[in-house]
Amino acid sequence: MSADELKAKIRDVPDWPEKGVIFRDIMPLLADHEALNETIDHIAAWAKPKKPDIVVGGEARGFFIGSAVAYSLGCGFVPARRPGKLPLATIGAEYALEYGTNALELQADAFEGGSRVLIHDDVLATGGTSKAMAGLVEQLGGDVVGMAFIIELDFLNGREQISDYDVFSLIHY
Amino acid sequence: MSADELKAKIRDVPDWPEKGVIFRDIMPLLADHEALNETIDHIAAWAKPKKPDIVVGGEARGFFIGSAVAYSLGCGFVPARRPGKLPLATIGAEYALEYGTNALELQADAFEGGSRVLIHDDVLATGGTSKAMAGLVEQLGGDVVGMAFIIELDFLNGREQISDYDVFSLIHY
Repeated sequence: MSADELKAKIRDVPDWPEKGVIFRDIMPLLADHEALNETIDHIAAWAKPKKPDIVVGGEARGFFIGSAVAYSLGCGFVPARRPGKLPLATIGAEYALEYGTNALELQADAFEGGSRVLIHDDVLATGGTSKAMAGLVEQLGGDVVGMAFIIELDFLNGREQISDYDVFSLIHY
Repeated sequence: MSADELKAKIRDVPDWPEKGVIFRDIMPLLADHEALNETIDHIAAWAKPKKPDIVVGGEARGFFIGSAVAYSLGCGFVPARRPGKLPLATIGAEYALEYGTNALELQADAFEGGSRVLIHDDVLATGGTSKAMAGLVEQLGGDVVGMAFIIELDFLNGREQISDYDVFSLIHY
Protein backbone atom coordinates (compact mmCIF):
# COMPACT_ATOMS: atom_id res chain seq x y z
CA MET A 1 0.00 0.00 0.00
CA SER A 2 1.33 3.42 -0.96
CA ALA A 3 1.19 6.45 1.33
CA ASP A 4 -1.75 7.72 -0.76
CA GLU A 5 -3.66 4.46 -0.26
CA LEU A 6 -2.98 4.65 3.47
CA LYS A 7 -4.11 8.29 3.50
CA ALA A 8 -7.42 7.17 2.00
CA LYS A 9 -8.01 5.13 5.21
CA ILE A 10 -7.88 8.31 7.34
CA ARG A 11 -11.13 10.12 8.05
CA ASP A 12 -11.50 13.90 8.27
CA VAL A 13 -13.53 15.16 11.23
CA PRO A 14 -14.24 18.92 10.91
CA ASP A 15 -14.43 21.13 14.04
CA TRP A 16 -13.01 18.49 16.40
CA PRO A 17 -11.79 18.70 19.15
CA GLU A 18 -12.31 22.47 18.60
CA LYS A 19 -14.09 24.63 16.03
CA GLY A 20 -11.87 25.33 13.03
CA VAL A 21 -9.66 22.25 13.51
CA ILE A 22 -9.93 19.35 11.06
CA PHE A 23 -9.09 16.22 13.05
CA ARG A 24 -7.48 13.39 11.09
CA ASP A 25 -9.01 10.21 12.51
CA ILE A 26 -6.59 7.30 12.11
CA MET A 27 -8.93 4.74 13.74
CA PRO A 28 -10.01 3.23 10.38
CA LEU A 29 -6.34 2.90 9.37
CA LEU A 30 -5.42 1.14 12.64
CA ALA A 31 -8.44 -1.20 12.45
CA ASP A 32 -7.58 -2.33 8.89
CA HIS A 33 -5.04 -5.14 9.34
CA GLU A 34 -3.34 -4.52 6.00
CA ALA A 35 -3.12 -0.74 6.48
CA LEU A 36 -1.83 -1.16 10.06
CA ASN A 37 0.79 -3.64 8.90
CA GLU A 38 1.96 -1.39 6.04
CA THR A 39 2.08 1.72 8.22
CA ILE A 40 4.32 -0.04 10.74
CA ASP A 41 6.51 -1.51 7.98
CA HIS A 42 6.98 1.87 6.21
CA ILE A 43 8.07 3.56 9.45
CA ALA A 44 10.31 0.67 10.52
CA ALA A 45 11.93 0.55 7.06
CA TRP A 46 12.82 4.24 7.32
CA ALA A 47 14.15 3.88 10.87
CA LYS A 48 16.11 0.64 10.46
CA PRO A 49 19.33 2.13 8.97
CA LYS A 50 19.51 4.48 11.98
CA LYS A 51 19.93 1.40 14.22
CA PRO A 52 17.76 2.54 17.13
CA ASP A 53 17.85 0.64 20.44
CA ILE A 54 14.70 2.23 21.86
CA VAL A 55 11.44 3.69 20.51
CA VAL A 56 9.94 6.45 22.68
CA GLY A 57 6.22 7.08 22.07
CA GLY A 58 4.18 9.97 23.53
CA GLU A 59 0.95 9.41 25.52
CA ALA A 60 -1.50 8.39 24.35
CA ARG A 61 -1.64 8.42 20.55
CA GLY A 62 2.08 7.70 20.22
CA PHE A 63 1.41 4.37 21.95
CA PHE A 64 -0.93 3.19 19.18
CA ILE A 65 1.85 1.82 16.98
CA GLY A 66 4.97 2.69 19.02
CA SER A 67 5.56 -0.79 20.38
CA ALA A 68 4.74 -2.39 17.04
CA VAL A 69 7.44 -0.29 15.39
CA ALA A 70 9.78 -1.30 18.25
CA TYR A 71 8.86 -4.98 17.79
CA SER A 72 9.47 -4.77 14.04
CA LEU A 73 12.88 -3.14 14.63
CA GLY A 74 13.92 -5.39 17.55
CA CYS A 75 13.97 -2.37 19.89
CA GLY A 76 12.67 -1.76 23.39
CA PHE A 77 9.68 0.55 23.90
CA VAL A 78 9.55 3.47 26.36
CA PRO A 79 6.28 5.36 26.89
CA ALA A 80 6.56 9.11 27.60
CA ARG A 81 3.62 9.56 29.97
CA ARG A 82 1.39 12.29 31.38
CA PRO A 83 2.48 13.63 34.79
CA GLY A 84 1.75 11.30 37.71
CA LYS A 85 1.35 8.17 35.59
CA LEU A 86 4.86 6.76 36.05
CA PRO A 87 6.11 5.43 39.39
CA LEU A 88 9.58 6.08 40.84
CA ALA A 89 11.93 8.93 39.85
CA THR A 90 10.95 10.82 36.68
CA ILE A 91 12.00 13.83 34.63
CA GLY A 92 9.40 16.03 32.94
CA ALA A 93 8.85 18.75 30.35
CA GLU A 94 5.97 21.12 29.55
CA TYR A 95 5.25 22.30 26.01
CA ALA A 96 2.69 24.09 23.81
CA LEU A 97 0.33 22.14 21.54
CA GLU A 98 -1.63 23.01 18.38
CA TYR A 99 -4.54 23.49 20.83
CA GLY A 100 -3.57 23.99 24.52
CA THR A 101 -0.52 22.98 26.57
CA ASN A 102 0.66 19.65 27.93
CA ALA A 103 3.43 17.84 29.79
CA LEU A 104 5.22 14.50 29.51
CA GLU A 105 7.50 12.48 31.77
CA LEU A 106 10.07 9.73 31.40
CA GLN A 107 11.35 7.48 34.17
CA ALA A 108 14.84 8.64 35.14
CA ASP A 109 16.23 5.15 34.36
CA ALA A 110 14.06 4.58 31.26
CA PHE A 111 17.08 3.49 29.17
CA GLU A 112 20.87 3.36 29.39
CA GLY A 113 22.92 6.46 28.60
CA GLY A 114 24.20 6.31 25.02
CA SER A 115 21.08 4.50 23.75
CA ARG A 116 20.04 5.29 20.18
CA VAL A 117 16.45 6.53 20.37
CA LEU A 118 13.70 6.85 17.76
CA ILE A 119 11.01 9.35 18.79
CA HIS A 120 7.52 8.42 17.59
CA ASP A 121 4.14 10.12 17.66
CA ASP A 122 1.02 9.78 15.55
CA VAL A 123 0.99 13.39 14.27
CA LEU A 124 3.66 16.04 13.72
CA ALA A 125 1.73 19.27 14.25
CA THR A 126 3.64 22.26 15.72
CA GLY A 127 6.56 20.03 16.73
CA GLY A 128 6.25 20.98 20.41
CA THR A 129 5.59 17.46 21.69
CA SER A 130 8.43 15.89 19.73
CA LYS A 131 10.89 18.61 20.71
CA ALA A 132 9.96 18.12 24.37
CA MET A 133 10.39 14.34 24.06
CA ALA A 134 13.78 14.78 22.39
CA GLY A 135 14.85 17.12 25.20
CA LEU A 136 13.89 14.52 27.82
CA VAL A 137 15.71 11.76 25.93
CA GLU A 138 18.86 13.91 25.70
CA GLN A 139 18.62 14.81 29.40
CA LEU A 140 18.91 11.06 30.09
CA GLY A 141 21.96 10.75 27.82
CA GLY A 142 20.12 9.27 24.84
CA ASP A 143 21.03 9.97 21.22
CA VAL A 144 17.94 10.92 19.15
CA VAL A 145 18.63 9.15 15.83
CA GLY A 146 15.30 10.07 14.24
CA MET A 147 11.68 11.08 14.61
CA ALA A 148 8.92 9.21 12.80
CA PHE A 149 5.24 10.14 12.45
CA ILE A 150 2.22 8.66 10.74
CA ILE A 151 0.91 12.12 9.75
CA GLU A 152 2.53 15.54 9.25
CA LEU A 153 0.43 18.72 9.12
CA ASP A 154 2.76 20.60 6.76
CA PHE A 155 0.97 23.95 7.14
CA LEU A 156 1.92 24.12 10.86
CA ASN A 157 5.66 24.10 9.98
CA GLY A 158 6.50 21.70 12.83
CA ARG A 159 9.73 20.72 11.07
CA GLU A 160 11.19 24.14 11.85
CA GLN A 161 11.06 23.35 15.58
CA ILE A 162 12.83 20.02 15.10
CA SER A 163 15.22 20.95 12.30
CA ASP A 164 18.15 19.47 14.28
CA TYR A 165 16.70 15.99 13.79
CA ASP A 166 16.16 13.52 10.98
CA VAL A 167 12.37 13.48 10.45
CA PHE A 168 10.06 11.09 8.57
CA SER A 169 6.30 11.38 8.08
CA LEU A 170 4.36 8.81 6.08
CA ILE A 171 1.33 10.95 5.20
CA HIS A 172 1.19 14.70 4.60
CA TYR A 173 -1.61 17.28 4.77
CA MET B 1 12.61 -16.29 27.80
CA SER B 2 10.27 -18.10 30.17
CA ALA B 3 7.42 -16.37 32.01
CA ASP B 4 9.62 -16.45 35.16
CA GLU B 5 12.47 -14.71 33.35
CA LEU B 6 10.02 -12.07 32.05
CA LYS B 7 8.61 -11.65 35.57
CA ALA B 8 12.12 -10.86 36.79
CA LYS B 9 12.06 -7.78 34.50
CA ILE B 10 9.04 -6.35 36.36
CA ARG B 11 9.69 -4.02 39.26
CA ASP B 12 7.61 -3.90 42.46
CA VAL B 13 6.66 -0.40 43.63
CA PRO B 14 5.10 -0.51 47.13
CA ASP B 15 2.34 1.97 48.10
CA TRP B 16 1.77 3.25 44.53
CA PRO B 17 -0.51 4.75 43.31
CA GLU B 18 -2.11 4.33 46.78
CA LYS B 19 -0.92 3.12 50.18
CA GLY B 20 -1.22 -0.65 50.50
CA VAL B 21 -1.08 -1.31 46.74
CA ILE B 22 2.03 -2.94 45.24
CA PHE B 23 2.30 -1.59 41.70
CA ARG B 24 3.93 -3.92 39.16
CA ASP B 25 6.03 -1.64 36.96
CA ILE B 26 6.40 -3.17 33.48
CA MET B 27 8.54 -0.31 32.12
CA PRO B 28 11.81 -2.29 32.43
CA LEU B 29 10.19 -5.23 30.60
CA LEU B 30 8.97 -2.99 27.74
CA ALA B 31 12.34 -1.22 27.44
CA ASP B 32 14.26 -4.51 27.13
CA HIS B 33 14.06 -5.43 23.45
CA GLU B 34 14.31 -9.16 24.08
CA ALA B 35 11.73 -9.17 26.88
CA LEU B 36 9.34 -7.01 24.82
CA ASN B 37 9.71 -9.29 21.83
CA GLU B 38 9.11 -12.45 23.89
CA THR B 39 6.12 -10.96 25.72
CA ILE B 40 4.44 -10.12 22.40
CA ASP B 41 5.32 -13.52 20.93
CA HIS B 42 3.95 -15.46 23.94
CA ILE B 43 0.63 -13.60 23.80
CA ALA B 44 0.35 -13.84 20.00
CA ALA B 45 1.15 -17.58 20.10
CA TRP B 46 -1.70 -18.15 22.56
CA ALA B 47 -4.14 -16.02 20.54
CA LYS B 48 -3.28 -17.28 17.04
CA PRO B 49 -5.43 -20.45 17.05
CA LYS B 50 -8.44 -18.30 17.97
CA LYS B 51 -8.06 -16.51 14.61
CA PRO B 52 -8.82 -12.96 15.78
CA ASP B 53 -9.45 -10.20 13.22
CA ILE B 54 -9.11 -7.34 15.69
CA VAL B 55 -7.20 -6.64 18.92
CA VAL B 56 -8.96 -4.20 21.28
CA GLY B 57 -6.67 -2.57 23.88
CA GLY B 58 -7.80 -0.40 26.80
CA GLU B 59 -6.43 3.13 27.41
CA ALA B 60 -3.69 3.68 28.17
CA ARG B 61 -1.70 0.69 29.39
CA GLY B 62 -3.46 -1.70 27.02
CA PHE B 63 -1.98 0.34 24.15
CA PHE B 64 1.61 -0.45 25.21
CA ILE B 65 1.76 -3.76 23.34
CA GLY B 66 -1.76 -4.00 21.85
CA SER B 67 -0.79 -2.98 18.34
CA ALA B 68 2.36 -5.10 18.43
CA VAL B 69 0.25 -8.16 19.25
CA ALA B 70 -2.09 -7.15 16.40
CA TYR B 71 0.88 -6.72 14.03
CA SER B 72 2.28 -10.11 15.00
CA LEU B 73 -1.14 -11.74 14.40
CA GLY B 74 -1.98 -9.82 11.20
CA CYS B 75 -4.96 -8.17 12.93
CA GLY B 76 -6.28 -4.63 13.05
CA PHE B 77 -5.99 -2.64 16.28
CA VAL B 78 -8.85 -0.79 17.98
CA PRO B 79 -8.14 1.40 21.02
CA ALA B 80 -10.87 1.56 23.70
CA ARG B 81 -10.47 5.16 24.86
CA ARG B 82 -11.38 7.41 27.79
CA PRO B 83 -14.57 9.45 27.31
CA GLY B 84 -14.23 12.40 24.95
CA LYS B 85 -11.06 11.15 23.23
CA LEU B 86 -12.71 9.56 20.17
CA PRO B 87 -14.43 11.65 17.47
CA LEU B 88 -17.73 10.74 15.82
CA ALA B 89 -20.38 8.35 17.23
CA THR B 90 -19.25 6.23 20.18
CA ILE B 91 -20.64 3.75 22.69
CA GLY B 92 -19.41 3.74 26.29
CA ALA B 93 -19.35 1.77 29.54
CA GLU B 94 -18.49 2.63 33.16
CA TYR B 95 -16.92 0.10 35.51
CA ALA B 96 -15.22 -0.31 38.91
CA LEU B 97 -11.43 -0.63 39.21
CA GLU B 98 -9.11 -2.11 41.84
CA TYR B 99 -8.78 1.53 42.99
CA GLY B 100 -11.57 3.93 41.81
CA THR B 101 -13.94 3.86 38.82
CA ASN B 102 -13.43 4.51 35.14
CA ALA B 103 -15.09 4.55 31.72
CA LEU B 104 -14.14 3.51 28.19
CA GLU B 105 -15.56 4.15 24.72
CA LEU B 106 -15.38 2.54 21.29
CA GLN B 107 -16.29 4.20 18.01
CA ALA B 108 -19.68 2.87 16.90
CA ASP B 109 -18.13 1.69 13.60
CA ALA B 110 -14.84 0.47 15.14
CA PHE B 111 -15.06 -2.91 13.35
CA GLU B 112 -17.51 -4.92 11.26
CA GLY B 113 -20.21 -6.98 12.96
CA GLY B 114 -19.11 -10.61 13.24
CA SER B 115 -15.43 -9.69 13.73
CA ARG B 116 -13.42 -12.03 15.96
CA VAL B 117 -11.97 -9.87 18.72
CA LEU B 118 -9.08 -10.40 21.14
CA ILE B 119 -9.37 -8.18 24.23
CA HIS B 120 -5.99 -7.04 25.61
CA ASP B 121 -4.89 -5.15 28.69
CA ASP B 122 -1.62 -5.01 30.62
CA VAL B 123 -3.06 -6.28 33.92
CA LEU B 124 -6.02 -8.47 34.88
CA ALA B 125 -6.96 -7.14 38.32
CA THR B 126 -10.65 -7.28 39.33
CA GLY B 127 -11.71 -8.00 35.73
CA GLY B 128 -13.96 -4.93 35.58
CA THR B 129 -12.13 -3.24 32.71
CA SER B 130 -12.01 -6.38 30.56
CA LYS B 131 -15.66 -7.21 31.22
CA ALA B 132 -16.65 -3.67 30.22
CA MET B 133 -14.55 -3.90 27.03
CA ALA B 134 -16.11 -7.26 26.16
CA GLY B 135 -19.58 -5.78 26.67
CA LEU B 136 -18.78 -2.92 24.30
CA VAL B 137 -17.37 -5.31 21.70
CA GLU B 138 -20.50 -7.49 21.90
CA GLN B 139 -22.76 -4.42 21.66
CA LEU B 140 -21.11 -3.77 18.27
CA GLY B 141 -21.71 -7.36 17.13
CA GLY B 142 -18.16 -8.58 17.76
CA ASP B 143 -17.30 -12.10 18.94
CA VAL B 144 -14.85 -12.05 21.88
CA VAL B 145 -12.58 -15.01 21.08
CA GLY B 146 -10.18 -14.42 23.97
CA MET B 147 -8.67 -12.08 26.53
CA ALA B 148 -4.91 -11.79 26.97
CA PHE B 149 -2.95 -10.00 29.68
CA ILE B 150 0.70 -9.52 30.52
CA ILE B 151 0.02 -9.80 34.27
CA GLU B 152 -2.74 -11.38 36.36
CA LEU B 153 -3.21 -10.50 40.04
CA ASP B 154 -4.58 -13.90 41.07
CA PHE B 155 -5.60 -12.80 44.58
CA LEU B 156 -8.18 -10.34 43.14
CA ASN B 157 -10.10 -13.22 41.49
CA GLY B 158 -10.67 -11.24 38.29
CA ARG B 159 -11.26 -14.48 36.37
CA GLU B 160 -14.58 -14.95 38.16
CA GLN B 161 -15.92 -11.79 36.48
CA ILE B 162 -14.86 -12.97 33.02
CA SER B 163 -15.50 -16.72 33.38
CA ASP B 164 -17.50 -16.72 30.12
CA TYR B 165 -14.30 -16.02 28.19
CA ASP B 166 -11.08 -17.79 27.29
CA VAL B 167 -8.39 -16.01 29.33
CA PHE B 168 -4.57 -16.02 29.16
CA SER B 169 -2.12 -14.25 31.43
CA LEU B 170 1.62 -14.54 30.92
CA ILE B 171 2.76 -13.64 34.46
CA HIS B 172 0.96 -14.31 37.74
CA TYR B 173 1.13 -12.73 41.21
